[in-house]
Amino acid sequence: MKAEIIAVGTELLLGQVVNTNATFLSEELASLGIDVFYHSVVGDNPNRLEELLTIADKRSDLIVLCGGLGPTDDDLTKQVTARHVGQELVRDEPGYHQLKAFFENSQRRMTENNLRQTLVFKDGVSLPNPNGLAIGIFYQTAATSYLLLPGPPSELQAMFLTHAKPLLLEQFPQEEVLLSRVLRYYGIGESALVTELADLIENQVNPTIAPYAKPNEVTLRLTVKTADEAQGIKQLDALEETVQARVGAYFYGYGEQNSLAETVVGLLIEKKKTVTAAESLTAGLFQATLGGISGVSEVFPGGFVTYSAATKSKLLGIDPGLLESYGTVSQECAEAMAVYARKQAETDYAVAFTGVAGPDELEGQPKGTVWIALASDKGVSSQLYHFNRDRAYIRHSAVMAGLNQIRKELLN
Amino acid sequence: MKAEIIAVGTELLLGQVVNTNATFLSEELASLGIDVFYHSVVGDNPNRLEELLTIADKRSDLIVLCGGLGPTDDDLTKQVTARHVGQELVRDEPGYHQLKAFFENSQRRMTENNLRQTLVFKDGVSLPNPNGLAIGIFYQTAATSYLLLPGPPSELQAMFLTHAKPLLLEQFPQEEVLLSRVLRYYGIGESALVTELADLIENQVNPTIAPYAKPNEVTLRLTVKTADEAQGIKQLDALEETVQARVGAYFYGYGEQNSLAETVVGLLIEKKKTVTAAESLTAGLFQATLGGISGVSEVFPGGFVTYSAATKSKLLGIDPGLLESYGTVSQECAEAMAVYARKQAETDYAVAFTGVAGPDELEGQPKGTVWIALASDKGVSSQLYHFNRDRAYIRHSAVMAGLNQIRKELLN
Repeated sequence: MKAEIIAVGTELLLGQVVNTNATFLSEELASLGIDVFYHSVVGDNPNRLEELLTIADKRSDLIVLCGGLGPTDDDLTKQVTARHVGQELVRDEPGYHQLKAFFENSQRRMTENNLRQTLVFKDGVSLPNPNGLAIGIFYQTAATSYLLLPGPPSELQAMFLTHAKPLLLEQFPQEEVLLSRVLRYYGIGESALVTELADLIENQVNPTIAPYAKPNEVTLRLTVKTADEAQGIKQLDALEETVQARVGAYFYGYGEQNSLAETVVGLLIEKKKTVTAAESLTAGLFQATLGGISGVSEVFPGGFVTYSAATKSKLLGIDPGLLESYGTVSQECAEAMAVYARKQAETDYAVAFTGVAGPDELEGQPKGTVWIALASDKGVSSQLYHFNRDRAYIRHSAVMAGLNQIRKELLN
Repeated sequence: MKAEIIAVGTELLLGQVVNTNATFLSEELASLGIDVFYHSVVGDNPNRLEELLTIADKRSDLIVLCGGLGPTDDDLTKQVTARHVGQELVRDEPGYHQLKAFFENSQRRMTENNLRQTLVFKDGVSLPNPNGLAIGIFYQTAATSYLLLPGPPSELQAMFLTHAKPLLLEQFPQEEVLLSRVLRYYGIGESALVTELADLIENQVNPTIAPYAKPNEVTLRLTVKTADEAQGIKQLDALEETVQARVGAYFYGYGEQNSLAETVVGLLIEKKKTVTAAESLTAGLFQATLGGISGVSEVFPGGFVTYSAATKSKLLGIDPGLLESYGTVSQECAEAMAVYARKQAETDYAVAFTGVAGPDELEGQPKGTVWIALASDKGVSSQLYHFNRDRAYIRHSAVMAGLNQIRKELLN
């Protein structure tokens, strides 16, 4: 079952709108076991849409069109597709009554062009629109199925989930379903991870391994196509074990919705430990990242942003002489920041960040130079990093490294 | 000049990633007067990419490919395109030296597969990567031009703006160019803004007005197509004047790369004023936002994250009795936080945030309730907000409102 998605709309080609509909539909179709091999975008131009339909007919079993079902003259997806498959356009009666009621209720005048939204294929299935007025269409020829959905994401998603998805499940029952599991890694780059798993990735058939690099982390999605769910889970377990034997040292958690910060806050709550921070180059980003996680108030009372040298002394109480002797971008400064922050906030742990966010160097040290210290009841330790790229990336890299230092401490 | 954009990557077809590269490139190409007629997405599959190139050759003069330049075996855009146009792949020497230096600096082992990133076409133009390791390519046959860019948006954007755009301007000089101007608004929603400008938007031909909603702000892009730059600028000036007469009260600045935080830091530097903050629900996000802007160290020495009630007393010195009487989500608490933070950090201004980020209510107040206070040498003032949506959005809304309070104070 090969599918493709065609989005119709000049606004997409001008870069005014992002094609999130293709993303939503791809994920949904994958969950139904339908393979999406192409996305296309074409403008509100009947000839180019017709050409694209001719290409799509040759390579796909299911063509999902989105956009161009609205009331204006440049909404032409229905008209072009109807002509392409030789269907007559007729009025959808329930849609027409909904349209009339909408304009009566909102006390607005219904202009003639609105009737276009209620046109459907004579021999197709009409799909009601829970969040709008344009009616969708499902139509099958001997070779190809066509699904026409509206462009606004709220309308498309509601129509797909409520009406199109059940129809596709019924029309294309898949014996096999996709099960997937996401593993998250910190501290190893995508290319190194892939090298460790090269033979597995090269020889993969089912289950498959898909690496994906995000800023400062990599995820692996293990996916199995199976008609037997219990068997599929066993296959994923076995693959996970093989993968983790090689790269498990960098693994920190499961799931698409997870993060290093979620993991750290979870561990702090579980172990009933509290944390504070003193931040120079990150300027509050570490604490703001913790603050993004519900429930963090149990383990995080607050902390310090000590951007200038003066606030390092003023807010934390560090001896200005120490800063003068060693500089602010130094192991001594990072460790003092952590020790004093912990003392002042009365927490179990304190993480301190000092370094050079760039674009310029600081105290003769190049941008990307970062010291991160961790203080606990056992004393204080610190690590030196050399991060790359721009200011935003260096600060994010520092936050992730700080989270990982405390994660490792908590797991010790 | 007809162009199309082909994004290569199975992750796009699985719905794991949104194709924002096509959006960015479309906007950029439009600004060069190059018409984009199609977007396509294809997976990491050599045969399907080859088929798509054959289709694209027939309908486009310029084919922009993005993604698939990375180090792994499924990165095959260069290899397939090279075969398609009959080019040999050779090593790009500057790229190779950058690659070696990167691994030496970061003290990581360079695996063999990384060398793939430095392969380029023998007779093409190599495009350096300011934010990564994969080298881009520009290559022309008699009929068609090919531009190959990396997939990660930060790399693609930097490479396009720095290297590809000047090249395209030189290769394809357009008689008519697009001039555009971005106006930024805070404090008015997209639909309200569009309603104010409804007649202008409805009757627009040249110049055009394109509204775009971002989290907590709206931008308007005014665009004119012209063969006479001076005349085009006059047209934009006239349109801007008409627009600002209606919605200028919400305007805060120009430009795509601008932000409310940039504007505030610029004003602080211009007026030689310093700022600190005490943050409860935002937990450092306001300060981290300031910290993202180069040059902020001139005007921001640091500040406080006072998440718990205890740290509001401990770090700032607020009387615990005040917190008990009024609660932490109160005007009194917000104003005390601002006053004490300003005193401790010895700055001209202090902004304080206290409220309910959610998901649960706090002290009987619903999520989204936020007090923001601003202290200066003139005293302290505060405002109550009721923000909507989720935790992340509420915190972001609070940061934007705090920035706007200080912006207005600075303009007074």
